[in-house]
Parts: sequence; C-alpha cells; structure tokens
Amino acid sequence: MKHIESESNASLKQWKKLHTKKEREKSGTFLIEGPHLIEEAIASGAKLQHVIVEENFEINETWLKEKFSLWSVPAKLMKQLSETEKPQGIIAVCEMMDQSEEIIKKEGRYLLIDGVQDPGNLGTIIRTADSAGLDGVFLGEGTADLYNGKTVRSTQGSLFHLPIVKANLLEIIERCKAHDLPVLSTSLQNSVDMRETPEVNGFALIMGNEGAGVQEILQQESTLNVKIPIFGSAESLNVSVATGILLYELQRNRT
Amino acid sequence: MKHIESESNASLKQWKKLHTKKEREKSGTFLIEGPHLIEEAIASGAKLQHVIVEENFEINETWLKEKFSLWSVPAKLMKQLSETEKPQGIIAVCEMMDQSEEIIKKEGRYLLIDGVQDPGNLGTIIRTADSAGLDGVFLGEGTADLYNGKTVRSTQGSLFHLPIVKANLLEIIERCKAHDLPVLSTSLQNSVDMRETPEVNGFALIMGNEGAGVQEILQQESTLNVKIPIFGSAESLNVSVATGILLYELQRNRT
Repeated sequence: MKHIESESNASLKQWKKLHTKKEREKSGTFLIEGPHLIEEAIASGAKLQHVIVEENFEINETWLKEKFSLWSVPAKLMKQLSETEKPQGIIAVCEMMDQSEEIIKKEGRYLLIDGVQDPGNLGTIIRTADSAGLDGVFLGEGTADLYNGKTVRSTQGSLFHLPIVKANLLEIIERCKAHDLPVLSTSLQNSVDMRETPEVNGFALIMGNEGAGVQEILQQESTLNVKIPIFGSAESLNVSVATGILLYELQRNRT
Repeated sequence: MKHIESESNASLKQWKKLHTKKEREKSGTFLIEGPHLIEEAIASGAKLQHVIVEENFEINETWLKEKFSLWSVPAKLMKQLSETEKPQGIIAVCEMMDQSEEIIKKEGRYLLIDGVQDPGNLGTIIRTADSAGLDGVFLGEGTADLYNGKTVRSTQGSLFHLPIVKANLLEIIERCKAHDLPVLSTSLQNSVDMRETPEVNGFALIMGNEGAGVQEILQQESTLNVKIPIFGSAESLNVSVATGILLYELQRNRT
C-alpha cells in the first residue's frame, strides 16, 4: 500500500478531477464511494484501477486478490476526494463499462430515458429498473450523466447489474419495433390508463424529463401512450416513482 | 410594500431562523419558496404571514387580496433567506396547518410513515400519497420534519392537499383496526407478494425507514405483511418508489 500525505500529489489531483464530467469522459473512469459500491463493482467484474482508503480503514481482505493499486490517505485528503458529507473511508477509481447496444432481443424488457435531468432521479430509476428485472436501460441525449457521483450513489450498485447504454432513442425505438416489442410512451394526453394496457411479454417503456415529459417526436414513434391515473390533487408524480409504478404494472403477471 | 436593505433587519433575521426545526416549532411557521408553492398554499387556504419578494419580482396581483405583509429585498438578501441554489424570487412565511387526528373513517385510505429519514424521500412520498388519492398521512416518531425546506419542495405542494399528522403509529393502527381497515406492513420476511393481496376498499399502509424498514412492533400489530417482488439483482427499492408501487397496486380496481 502506498501512502499519500500531500494534497499536491499528482495522483490525488488527477482523481479529484474525476468530480467533473469532462475528466471522467477523457479518462474513461469514475469514482465510486463506500464499501457497498466497491463490493458490487468487484462482484460484477467491473475493473478498479485504484482503491484509496483512509488511514486505519479495514479493507475486506478478499478484495486484495483484485488487480488494483492500493493507497492510503489521511482523513483530510479523503474529505477532499469524497463528494459526500460523511465519507465512508474508501473510494475507488473504476473503469467505465463497455456496453454494446446489441442487447435488444425478442421479448426483452427495456427502459428508454429521455432527458431525466436530476442525477438522484436517474440513479433511483436505474435501481428501479434493476429491481424490475429489465434487460437494459438506454440513456437519450440530455439525460444526466450516469457517472455523476450522485447518480452512482443513488443506483445503490444497480449500475453494475444491467447494461446501461447512451443512445439515440429514435434508433432504439426502431430496433425495438423490429423485434416486435411494443413501445410505450408516458403522456397525459391521448393516452390510456396503464391498467388497460394489453398484456405484454417484452416492451420498451419511455420515461421523459421531469418538467417537459417525453419529447413529441418520440411519442409519435411509440406504439401506445400510457398514463398513471391521478386519484388526488397532485399534478404529477415524481419520475422515479412513476417509473416504478409503470414497470410493475406492465409486469403484473410476471412470475 | 415595505423594503429591507440591511441584513441586520430584525424581521429578516427571524425568518432566516426558520431554516432550523427548533425555530419552526417554536413559531409554528415555516418557509415556502417559489410561485408554485405559494399559489398552492393560497388555493388551499393556508395562512401566509409574510411574503418576501426580490426587487422587480412581478407578484401575481390576485394574491394581494390575501392578508399578508409584503416585503421586498435585494437579491443578496433573498439569497441568504433562500435554501436553494437558484432562488425563484419569492418566499413566504406560512403558518403550520392545524391537523386533527380525527380523520380516520370506514373505507378510508391512509399511509403511516415509520421513520423515513431523508426529507426528499418524505416529500416525494407525500406527493405520491396525494396522487394516489389518500385520505391522510401519519408521521411516526423518527420521521423527517414535514416543514424542512427540502421536504416541502419535494412535495411540490401536496402538503397542502391532504391531512398530514404527527402521531403515535401504534395508536393509529388501533384506530384503523377499530374502523375495520386492514393494516398492511411492508416486509421482506413472512410476507405475501403484493399482487396476491385481497381486494380492499380502505386500508392503512405502513412504510418504514430507508435502512431498517418497518419496526418489528408495528409489523406485529399489522393485519398482513406485503412485499414487492424483486425480479432482478437489486436488494431493495427506494422507499418513495416502493410507496408508489404499493399504493397503486392496492388500488388496482379503483375507478
């Protein structure tokens, strides 16, 4: 284990730059914080380049079989590297997963995200897609960065569990249709109550931006527009809550 | 309209103290930010004591019929008073609603929140309870503060739409049972798949803390433990997402 004491250490300075999207994309790496996320990353075969622990942090010995460089830093430097108020004593530099778009198959279940902007919402949606057993998530243009620290934390590790691919959603819709998948768009206008949707085996569900919803052009290419009934006085549901309700409703007969 | 220029102004100093729970409880007031929340407060008959606008903010003239004091402040002071990164130019001091616990009735629909700690989650849950047309929400001990700025913003105004009452949940469970309402607790152990729950007219649903779930003692007093099936690899769902899925599942036949 190598030790870093100075905040002008070149490696430390490089890792701190991973707080920005620009540097994450340039390097193809991102930070993950806390033992739980690191455990999930290792279990799923994600590649860790560096693991940085606070002095006295007790590292899980089984992790030492992995091929990463191990560093220790004083609490003061851990605080600088961390993006949370209460650092958990361990942070890793993780390589971005190489995801192919070639995951669409007959009777597959996919979520298409059209411009969800809040990283916390995006992370929670990915966690929900994982719980609902989907086969993949596609992130359209204007969607929050998957590797933003807040997004990563909100996934609770689910970003390591299923393919998540940046994509042109119009192309994805076409490919889903070519595989006979119904493409469902969420919309309050000209839409059917989700409970009246036909039973489907596979599907592609499009969820839209927090304020603007799904883009008109994507709605037009959809097979069906669906909505969640509002029984009370709220104008709408939070987008991650809506995603959960719809994904479970569409799979009401899944065993 | 009165104008405040100095940050040592006594009223301004008092309003800033409302960022703390202690001062909110002492005064029985809380802050709401932005035109949308103020509109919802007025529409629902909540009492505003003061409305503070940034210089040049164009106030909705119909609001001026309300009996509040109107103040203007420079952008610098609005920034101090605001709890958001991008203040929306208007903040109000609102009186807490006086909620009676006497809202339980036959065939009513209630949500009991047992120790949800994150204010964003609590606010989103209240917005979801409103969307799902519930008759009331009870906040048990250890639950985040309803009047925390983050909670209030996350409700998107729903806190003005339905009764929300701090309560002893054991007592509430007893009263629900006395009204023949089934009391459903969420639990991963000894629980039935939510899709196999009997059809119910009214119900009380208990949702628990983000980490620990519903307290054992409340589970024991419940009529039935239910769970959401996990089809993928996530360990659990976010509590607001889970609330949405369950509330809509329990009302699958509501018209």
